[in-house]
Amino acid sequence: MAHPSVPVVPALKDELDIVIPTIRNLDFLEQWRPFFQPYHLIIVQDGDPTKTIRVPDGFDYELYNRNDVNRILGPKASCISFKDSACRCFGFLISKKKYIFTIDDDCFVAKDPSGKDINALAQHINNLLTPSTPFFFNTLYDPYRDGADFVRGYPFSMREGAPTAISHGLWLNIPDYDAPTQLVKPRERNTRYVDAVMTIPKGTLFPMCGMNLGFNRELIGPAMYFGLMGDGQPIGRYDDMWAGWCAKVICDHLGLGVKTGLPYIWHSKASNPFVNLKKEYKGIYWQEDIIPFFQSVSLPRECTTVQKCYVELSKLVAEKLGHVDPYFQKLSDAMVTWIEAWDELNTPSQAASETKTSPVNTK
Amino acid sequence: MAHPSVPVVPALKDELDIVIPTIRNLDFLEQWRPFFQPYHLIIVQDGDPTKTIRVPDGFDYELYNRNDVNRILGPKASCISFKDSACRCFGFLISKKKYIFTIDDDCFVAKDPSGKDINALAQHINNLLTPSTPFFFNTLYDPYRDGADFVRGYPFSMREGAPTAISHGLWLNIPDYDAPTQLVKPRERNTRYVDAVMTIPKGTLFPMCGMNLGFNRELIGPAMYFGLMGDGQPIGRYDDMWAGWCAKVICDHLGLGVKTGLPYIWHSKASNPFVNLKKEYKGIYWQEDIIPFFQSVSLPRECTTVQKCYVELSKLVAEKLGHVDPYFQKLSDAMVTWIEAWDELNTPSQAASETKTSPVNTK
Repeated sequence: MAHPSVPVVPALKDELDIVIPTIRNLDFLEQWRPFFQPYHLIIVQDGDPTKTIRVPDGFDYELYNRNDVNRILGPKASCISFKDSACRCFGFLISKKKYIFTIDDDCFVAKDPSGKDINALAQHINNLLTPSTPFFFNTLYDPYRDGADFVRGYPFSMREGAPTAISHGLWLNIPDYDAPTQLVKPRERNTRYVDAVMTIPKGTLFPMCGMNLGFNRELIGPAMYFGLMGDGQPIGRYDDMWAGWCAKVICDHLGLGVKTGLPYIWHSKASNPFVNLKKEYKGIYWQEDIIPFFQSVSLPRECTTVQKCYVELSKLVAEKLGHVDPYFQKLSDAMVTWIEAWDELNTPSQAASETKTSPVNTK
Repeated sequence: MAHPSVPVVPALKDELDIVIPTIRNLDFLEQWRPFFQPYHLIIVQDGDPTKTIRVPDGFDYELYNRNDVNRILGPKASCISFKDSACRCFGFLISKKKYIFTIDDDCFVAKDPSGKDINALAQHINNLLTPSTPFFFNTLYDPYRDGADFVRGYPFSMREGAPTAISHGLWLNIPDYDAPTQLVKPRERNTRYVDAVMTIPKGTLFPMCGMNLGFNRELIGPAMYFGLMGDGQPIGRYDDMWAGWCAKVICDHLGLGVKTGLPYIWHSKASNPFVNLKKEYKGIYWQEDIIPFFQSVSLPRECTTVQKCYVELSKLVAEKLGHVDPYFQKLSDAMVTWIEAWDELNTPSQAASETKTSPVNTK
C-alpha cells in the first residue's frame, strides 16, 4: 500500500530503477519511504555474501550479492568490483528500465530553505526529462525551468537543446571532499543551498559523484561503468570519477547533455579520511595524467553508439595511460568485458533468458 | 564627507572606476550613494551633448559628452558609438585605473534573501580578486568562497586557478531577454536568487550583459570594445554581446578566467520590446553565423597580449564574417581604430599628455 503522501501515479514509476550499493543503515529506507516506495529497488551488496541485508516491509526490491554476480556473469564477473561501492554498476547492467537513480546509504532527505523535504528523485526526473544546453552557456542557468528562459544573445538555433543523459545532484552537510581536504578542513559543512540546475558545457570535464546521481540508461548506460576498485585493486574512491570522465567525453561526442546542481540530499557522515587517503593516494597523482588524457580524447566519427565509443575509449586508455601503471591495461580489459556483459544482458533476446538473470532474493 | 555606512577604506578605492553610460534617472546615484560615493565615476553621455546631466552633490566624477569624445580622439572617435549605451567603452579607454565596474542607470540596489541590501561592487571586487577555475568544473561552484572548496576528483595541479579578468553579475526583477522573448513573456520576472559564483569554462561562450559588469582593465581592457551600435549603424543591443564574445575568446587564449553569478542588481524596467526588436533583428540572424565563428576561432601563439589578440581577431572578422554583411568590414576597421586609440591613451607616455584628455566637466 502506498504511503499517503505519495501521488497515485509517480513519475516514471515503470521506467525507473533505484540502484543502491549495500544498505548498512536501517533508517535509510525508512526516511526515503515516501519517495522511494513506489519504485523498484536494485540493491547490490558489496561485501561478504553470507551477511544478510534487511529491507523493511513494503519495498519492491531485488538484491544481488557477490555469488549472484558470479553466477549471472560467469567469467565476466571479473569486471565488477568487490568490497567497494563501485559494484553498484552491476545494478545498472541488470536493470531493464530506461532511467536509473543511484544513491548511497548514508544520504538522507535534505530540506530546502523553506524547511520542506526535498524529493530528490522528482528533481532528477525533471532534470532528465528536460533538455540540456551544452553548446552555449545560459547565464540564468536552466532555461527550461519555470520563471527562467534563454537570455538575450543566446542563439535561437541552439534553444532546442540536447537530450539529457545525466543528472548530477549535490550534497548538503558533508561535502564530497578528497582525503587531503577532509584532513585539512575536518569541520567544513556545506550549508549553501544553490537554487540552480545547469548544464556542464561541451568540452568541459567535471568530477561526477555517485552519491546522488540519475541517468538515462538508454542514452548513456554502457558508459556508466564504475571501474575496478576496492578488493585487490590499487585504488578506490575513483569509481564514480572514472565513470564521469568516460561518460562526459562520450556525451560530448554524441551530442548529449549533462546537468549538475539540484537536487540536494543530506550527506550524513564523512568517511574516514585516513582510510580514504590510503584508497585515493595513487588516484591523486594518476589523475594528473588521466585528466589531460580525457581532455584531449577525440573519438572517431564511426563511433555512433555508446558501446562503440566505450570500446574505442578502452583502447585509448591502454595506449595512452598504460605507461602510468599496469593497472590501466587491466582497466582497459575490464572496460571491454563490461561492454560484452552489457550487450549480453541487454540484447533484444535478453527477455528469453531472463530466468538466468533472476536474483536470489526477490520479493 | 563619507556616508556613515561606508567603510573608511573601501576596497580598491584608488584602483577602480565606475563607468556609467548616461544617467537619466536622478534616483539612480542616490540609491547607490552608500556604495559608490567613495569611488570615482566616469559618465559617458550617449546622446545630445547640449543636454545637461545632473549629478548629485558629493560624488567625485568626470563626464564626457560627444564633443569631448570627438575632441580627445579626433578622427579615431569614429570607433565610439553615438546615441547608444555602447559609448560606455570610451570610459574604459579614458580610465587610468586597474579595475572597472560598469552599470546601467536603470539598475538599482537589490536585496538578498535575508532582506539586506546587496553591495554589488564589493561582490565584483571579491570575484575579481580571487582566481577563476576555467580548466575543470567544480560542482560546488566557486571553490575559493567561504564554506566551499574543490571537490573530490578535482586535479590538484589545477587548484591554483587562473587570474580573473571578468566578473559578470546578474539581475533580479526584469531579466535580460531579447525582444522576441520580451514579447512572448511580458510578465516574466526573475525572482530566483541563485547564491553562486562560477567560472565559465574554457572553450565555452556566454552572452555577456553590460548592465552589471566588472573587469580587470589591465588584464582584458583592450578587448572590452562595445562595437558600432546605435546612430547610423544597422544593429543595436549587441554591443555587450560583441565585447563578451571577443573577450571570452581572448581570455581562453591567454589563460584568464571569466566568472558569472553574484552579485545581483535590481533591474527596474524593461526597455520597449518593439524598439528592441527593430534594433536586434539583424543581430538575431547574424549571430547564427557569429557564434560558430567565435566557437571555431583559434588565435596564433604569437598573440601574447590582448592588443595583439584583438587585432588578429579584427582580421578574422573581416575575413570570415565579411560575407554576412558589409557591416563586418566596417566593424573590423573600427576594432583596429579602437586598439590604436587604446594604445595612444594607455602608453607609458600617457601621463605627459593627460591635460589633453581632461574632460569638460570635472568636479
